Amino acid sequence: MKNFLFTVIFLLVTGWSVASVPNEDGSRLWLRLDAVSSRATISGVKCTAMTELQTFWKGGPVVLKRQKGMATDSYSIKSQGNKTVITAASNSALLYGAYHLLRLQQMGNPCTGLNIQEKPTYDLRILNHWDNPNGTVERGFAGHSIFLNPDPARMKTYARANASIGINGAVLNNVNAKPEALSAESLQKAKGIADQLRPYGIRVYLSINFASPIKVGGLKTADPLNADVIKWWKGKVGEIYKLIPDFGGFLVKANSEGEPGPQDFGRTHADGANMLADALKPHKGIVMWRAFVYAPQSPDRANQASLEFMPLDGKFRNNVIIQIKNGPVDFQPREPYSPLFTSMKKTPMMVEFQVTQEYLGAANHLCYLAPMWREFFSLVKPNSLKAMAGVANIGDDTNWCGHHFAQSNWYAFGRLAWNPELTSEQIADEWVKQTFSDENGKTSEKFVNAVEKIMLDSREACVDYMMPLGIHHIFAGGHHYGPEPWYTAPGIRADWTPAYYHRADSIGLGFDRTVNGSNNVSQYPDSLCNLYNNINTCPENLLAWFHHVPWDYRMKSGRTFWNELCHKYDDGLQQTRKFLAVWDDMKPYVDAQRFKEVQHKLRIQTRDAEWWRDACLLYFQTFSNRPIPQDMEHPVHELEDMKNFRIPITMYENPVCGFTK
Amino acid sequence: MKNFLFTVIFLLVTGWSVASVPNEDGSRLWLRLDAVSSRATISGVKCTAMTELQTFWKGGPVVLKRQKGMATDSYSIKSQGNKTVITAASNSALLYGAYHLLRLQQMGNPCTGLNIQEKPTYDLRILNHWDNPNGTVERGFAGHSIFLNPDPARMKTYARANASIGINGAVLNNVNAKPEALSAESLQKAKGIADQLRPYGIRVYLSINFASPIKVGGLKTADPLNADVIKWWKGKVGEIYKLIPDFGGFLVKANSEGEPGPQDFGRTHADGANMLADALKPHKGIVMWRAFVYAPQSPDRANQASLEFMPLDGKFRNNVIIQIKNGPVDFQPREPYSPLFTSMKKTPMMVEFQVTQEYLGAANHLCYLAPMWREFFSLVKPNSLKAMAGVANIGDDTNWCGHHFAQSNWYAFGRLAWNPELTSEQIADEWVKQTFSDENGKTSEKFVNAVEKIMLDSREACVDYMMPLGIHHIFAGGHHYGPEPWYTAPGIRADWTPAYYHRADSIGLGFDRTVNGSNNVSQYPDSLCNLYNNINTCPENLLAWFHHVPWDYRMKSGRTFWNELCHKYDDGLQQTRKFLAVWDDMKPYVDAQRFKEVQHKLRIQTRDAEWWRDACLLYFQTFSNRPIPQDMEHPVHELEDMKNFRIPITMYENPVCGFTK
Repeated sequence: MKNFLFTVIFLLVTGWSVASVPNEDGSRLWLRLDAVSSRATISGVKCTAMTELQTFWKGGPVVLKRQKGMATDSYSIKSQGNKTVITAASNSALLYGAYHLLRLQQMGNPCTGLNIQEKPTYDLRILNHWDNPNGTVERGFAGHSIFLNPDPARMKTYARANASIGINGAVLNNVNAKPEALSAESLQKAKGIADQLRPYGIRVYLSINFASPIKVGGLKTADPLNADVIKWWKGKVGEIYKLIPDFGGFLVKANSEGEPGPQDFGRTHADGANMLADALKPHKGIVMWRAFVYAPQSPDRANQASLEFMPLDGKFRNNVIIQIKNGPVDFQPREPYSPLFTSMKKTPMMVEFQVTQEYLGAANHLCYLAPMWREFFSLVKPNSLKAMAGVANIGDDTNWCGHHFAQSNWYAFGRLAWNPELTSEQIADEWVKQTFSDENGKTSEKFVNAVEKIMLDSREACVDYMMPLGIHHIFAGGHHYGPEPWYTAPGIRADWTPAYYHRADSIGLGFDRTVNGSNNVSQYPDSLCNLYNNINTCPENLLAWFHHVPWDYRMKSGRTFWNELCHKYDDGLQQTRKFLAVWDDMKPYVDAQRFKEVQHKLRIQTRDAEWWRDACLLYFQTFSNRPIPQDMEHPVHELEDMKNFRIPITMYENPVCGFTK
Repeated sequence: MKNFLFTVIFLLVTGWSVASVPNEDGSRLWLRLDAVSSRATISGVKCTAMTELQTFWKGGPVVLKRQKGMATDSYSIKSQGNKTVITAASNSALLYGAYHLLRLQQMGNPCTGLNIQEKPTYDLRILNHWDNPNGTVERGFAGHSIFLNPDPARMKTYARANASIGINGAVLNNVNAKPEALSAESLQKAKGIADQLRPYGIRVYLSINFASPIKVGGLKTADPLNADVIKWWKGKVGEIYKLIPDFGGFLVKANSEGEPGPQDFGRTHADGANMLADALKPHKGIVMWRAFVYAPQSPDRANQASLEFMPLDGKFRNNVIIQIKNGPVDFQPREPYSPLFTSMKKTPMMVEFQVTQEYLGAANHLCYLAPMWREFFSLVKPNSLKAMAGVANIGDDTNWCGHHFAQSNWYAFGRLAWNPELTSEQIADEWVKQTFSDENGKTSEKFVNAVEKIMLDSREACVDYMMPLGIHHIFAGGHHYGPEPWYTAPGIRADWTPAYYHRADSIGLGFDRTVNGSNNVSQYPDSLCNLYNNINTCPENLLAWFHHVPWDYRMKSGRTFWNELCHKYDDGLQQTRKFLAVWDDMKPYVDAQRFKEVQHKLRIQTRDAEWWRDACLLYFQTFSNRPIPQDMEHPVHELEDMKNFRIPITMYENPVCGFTK
């Protein structure tokens, strides 16, 4: 009896008991709004905002007012007595205002005394879906394409989720576009999706294959200066606008990784982009032309985009935007920013972030990306860009993103596209409170603090256990999930192998991009160039990006580079262990389903962190020939076992787990 | 150039370079004596001792003297000027003296000014080989039986190794004996082995099947009181002694785990043992009769041996020795001593230790067992016993024991059988210095200290990560390698399932053996009985052995029992990580082959420790319903995955590794 009483008290005190919170499968994303039983009084403009508020708003009367002259998508929310007035120039902007109000409600924040003015930094806030016609999603880790057989209920959630964070565009198909993307059937399908998204202020865009005039049109060329080609594109664009009057435009990956482009016909990126821009111009459509280009023979892939695009600066039409990945190589856990952002002066640019975690543990690792994107904006001024694109992490998994916490990256992308000055902390706080609040809009402070800390620390932890100190692109071939710094394949181009990037040898590790090396540093403004060029001033977290660092180079910690590397890998692992322990402690505050699913993923992540540490340290040790420091854990796996290990997945799947031995 | 110089200095300072020490495969065991080029002058008795010294002794002249009246196997070593005189009553004892001298040489100890008197505590120091006629070895983790097709060179090493530590007997076959062990062919084989071991003072013994008169002799019964049976055994014994005049005697497992025995014919253990003893008596042979008995219906298996044997105390012939496992259940990582040792007063007894690591990680885990055996002798007075048996860990693997460090257990068994007062530290020191010394008999002090510390801490680490705080027998079914606290099988007897022992439920964990429970405590002397019976005085390392401990029971550390359990498991893992790191640091001091092989095993051990922690904690958590403490690492494996995992091995094999996920 004593024991029983003690147990009861223990459970009451610790809260560690069977949670009575109903299970959640994550399908509602952060929009966990329950329909209210008695509708609130919503008056004014009849639009989607009104429907949403009528369904979900628990507060007093709301008035929706349209007011001409307000900036695109901007809105104000003002409390007037017991009334709340949302004012905006358009239905979409009113909807943004409505979601703002609902967000406050869902977070448990006060919804009175409001005096809010909001205006997005970018007019274009666009998700890029890398969805293929067969339903696979390139670098998709959350099942198949949601657009394959669009389910109306899911489409509605998708649209509401996007609108709730201000996303107003969606490129429906993979940048590695099949010509068939422009077939009549495909366009009909796009029309259907556009019709479903339109009430939520979301325009659709399409990726196009530059050789479409040949492949779809039956022409003999796709030369952008050829009259027939120009005519074909005009016709095709017209056909699209007949179906989708508010169609957004084209996203183009040309002359990159084997995709066709204007260079195939002796023309420039500008020739190609401008021809498409001219066709779209009458309809107010745009071209987003990707700068992600690199040639197999390039001495430094990081140099390539600038080399190709700088000569064209100022030669693009004003409805062309150059879409540039944040880093010069490819969505690595940490990269410097792509130098194009500061060198192109006369051309509209937009940044392409990768929301899907191609290089960050896919849908198995908890890695909150806002800090990475904020890091980008610390060097690239937000107002130097015109728009923001994010490669979506969305699929037909019940929880949309494969990992419950991957939803936070979709959320963060939208919020930062609206306002890149928002802090990672603010965004995490919004997301956590909406995603995990109880039916009264309450979230335990302990839970909020603990989980936000995990989120905020998670990206640096990933960097640490995957590729710290500026190391990059040492991922497994093909799926890019685990470590494979030794990866190579017969006849493979050098810049697709990790050795091209890490260049480990008996002296040290890293890619010499100084003026004595590939001279990539000179693509940066002078102050940064000097900073990066000198090994003693280069930020240590980019050291092996810009330098071939000697194993015994003395780091600021006093450790040698080799010892620091070892410790960084181990620190990353220790961090994931902490995340797991802290999450385990969150059991009382979250429903059993999500608790268990996240715990499962964190366990994988922790094991993977150990795998990363062991694989990288044991492999690099074959070059450094130096011991692992005594004041850290030592590898527990065998290098040979890890070398022989393969994950049998394609680039369209999330692995069940990592290395198993 | 500066880098190069730095590197050279670094390597010189740390010694972390490619070791120039020649590879060793462990086949020489601790007897790493190189034949000397010019033979030393050895005079006196011509015997094996002379040959050994002539071949390996590097010092001055040695005189071998025989002196009547000295106690069996005792010897003296005295320096007289530049001469060393070894005196003993027999050739075997001279050999022990010779090996003592060679040990000093191999350890790099001074070999002058000697004045040594040695006398073994036990006359019988016997290895029990659980080798089957088909060459498999029950609980053998080092390959197949060395006796299947005895290789003369290996037999010689085996004999020398045993003699070097004073082992003077070997039971050649499994206690689960096949009747064919007494066939003419088997006896011929035993004779061959006996002939090879005799020069080294080692007698052979055989395990017999009690039903042999039926199975081999064609009789209708094996009743020990039946005249034909008695006659048959007498004849068989005579046949053996014709072949092997110094045959040692029989080891018998009767009425245990399905083996036949006198109880099958309504007779007692004493009836059976005495009949065999009478047959052996004229030849000076002995019977070692095992007390390892337990019945499926027993309310507490730990009680059974005393229940069966106490009524027979004083009823055995004087050439019968009751062979009792050190603990009352079965070679667990930690058990209290078997209470028979202190309750039987009128019957000769011997202890059976398990040198092979059936329950201690097989040949994958480094677990130095001297501390476990010394723990036994702290409560059971050495002179209350007549002999010591050890279940061998020897097979036809190149390094004999599967794990280089498992050799230390063979070594420690022999040394303790000679002198149970030797400390674990002394024995480890001897073994390490002999096993890893360089050609000048030197071993780096750093290496000796580090490796001995690992050895001395290793058994407690195993207890911690396998079954701390008195938990026992929660091993996987069949092979007993990993954790399977949930193990059960259709129709299995209860005492073969872990739940019989751990009894986890919502209240707590452990087997109530107090006076309110199975009353096992009352088999111990009063002072211990009282100590064990009270949960507040019971040693915490035996708590769950004697008590069903409530999850919230307050431990001396201030933690609850559940939290303490969690921490113990994690502590064990942390210990193995340290062992691995320290061993990694030993690279400069050991040849590459053994360095690598031990490192490989330590990596497995570390991963296994994590597996043990995760499996046990997550399983017991389903009963405790309490959280894993925050101040330790949390499980990274899934309980379900571990439950579904099977190692596809028999009880005759060492697993390649443990849980893989």
